[in-house]
Amino acid sequence: MIIKILTLFPAMFEGFLNESIIKRAIDKGNCKIEVIDIRSYSTDKHHHVDDTPCGGGAGMVLAVDVVHRAIRENQTKNSHILLMSPQGKPYSQKEAYRLSEYEELILICGHYEGFDERIREYVDEEISIGDYVLTGGELPSMVVCDSVVRLLNQTIKEESHQNDSFSYGLLEYPQYTRPIVYNGEKVPEVLLNGNHKKIEEFRKKESLRRTLLRRPDLLEKYSLSIEEEKLLKEIQEELT
Amino acid sequence: MIIKILTLFPAMFEGFLNESIIKRAIDKGNCKIEVIDIRSYSTDKHHHVDDTPCGGGAGMVLAVDVVHRAIRENQTKNSHILLMSPQGKPYSQKEAYRLSEYEELILICGHYEGFDERIREYVDEEISIGDYVLTGGELPSMVVCDSVVRLLNQTIKEESHQNDSFSYGLLEYPQYTRPIVYNGEKVPEVLLNGNHKKIEEFRKKESLRRTLLRRPDLLEKYSLSIEEEKLLKEIQEELT
Repeated sequence: MIIKILTLFPAMFEGFLNESIIKRAIDKGNCKIEVIDIRSYSTDKHHHVDDTPCGGGAGMVLAVDVVHRAIRENQTKNSHILLMSPQGKPYSQKEAYRLSEYEELILICGHYEGFDERIREYVDEEISIGDYVLTGGELPSMVVCDSVVRLLNQTIKEESHQNDSFSYGLLEYPQYTRPIVYNGEKVPEVLLNGNHKKIEEFRKKESLRRTLLRRPDLLEKYSLSIEEEKLLKEIQEELT
Repeated sequence: MIIKILTLFPAMFEGFLNESIIKRAIDKGNCKIEVIDIRSYSTDKHHHVDDTPCGGGAGMVLAVDVVHRAIRENQTKNSHILLMSPQGKPYSQKEAYRLSEYEELILICGHYEGFDERIREYVDEEISIGDYVLTGGELPSMVVCDSVVRLLNQTIKEESHQNDSFSYGLLEYPQYTRPIVYNGEKVPEVLLNGNHKKIEEFRKKESLRRTLLRRPDLLEKYSLSIEEEKLLKEIQEELT
């Protein structure tokens, strides 16, 4: 996969590209990431990329001509173009799986304070990573990169993301590691005696419990198996 | 405000801290950000910070003793401690405003694949920036930092964030800047003739229209003024 990031702040990506999973994916040849400075597509001598809003108001608005030129000179027939925006479609793990199928993504990081409405004409979709306001689209594009790249073939082990929160619709079960006892608190006995059937049941039950207690909205959208229905009934009895 | 970030990947923050709004806020003395390496609180000779999960399974689990030591040695009586986790409370602009009131935040970036459940005992709350899975809590903690720091007194002009998407419950209206005509598309006339009352009405109406079309869930939670009810009725008539 090729990911091209169009940004006014290319230096913001340095740490991100040189650490952790992204670096591993690049080194393995699973993806190629190019960070492209939108400013280099400005044609005036001061390299302006934004201007005051028509009709007045605070903040600067990213200009359509500069961004369109940056898109045009970087897109290929395989490009799928995403605009990072708080007004976009809410991003989710399902969207991450969907985006991981593209050959090439172009991620446009705008000023979150405003970009010219007409930029929307030149993109395929708009993505919002959540209902909060950031300075720009740089962090959102890193979020999209990270969540997509970790799903690419061989970036991390398949089993690692099958148990992720949201991947199968529920929050993840509690995890424990050594020390077995810490500050008076012990790892649950069931995880220590090697009975794999019981361990699996414990994890499934705690995953259901956590989702019920923290995110009942997720549970409403989830179709329970017969075994899960039984476990959920047990949990509800335990809670009353 | 002081923000302390506990992470296994301190280098990931370099670009983030040296660019844009965060740097401006630091330079103005509005906030101080310390990035602290969790690994330096490991006591064994190989500096282990994680281990395999009790009960088996893929991935590594961040250990409670190391993280607890890192918290203990960095917290003060003013610290409010947040754990970044996909199982946390969904983050929103309202939460950003709430967190911006604290004197000191400690943000803990865990492996998203798993951290020892007992770490939860030592934090005040858990935050999730969205329903997707990332490699670690680093990007989520940058999102929290950015959204909170831009709200701090004098980081950006007050008027700039009063019009933000979500700040008053609706998506932001469309913005335009020069060129007035681009590729056959013109900035709406109303924004060009300097009638401030009409401009304000246009913006309010388009903000309502966009929210209705893209995020009806936000509109359901919003209490409309009499004027807004009238505008919304107009929009609904225009759409049929």
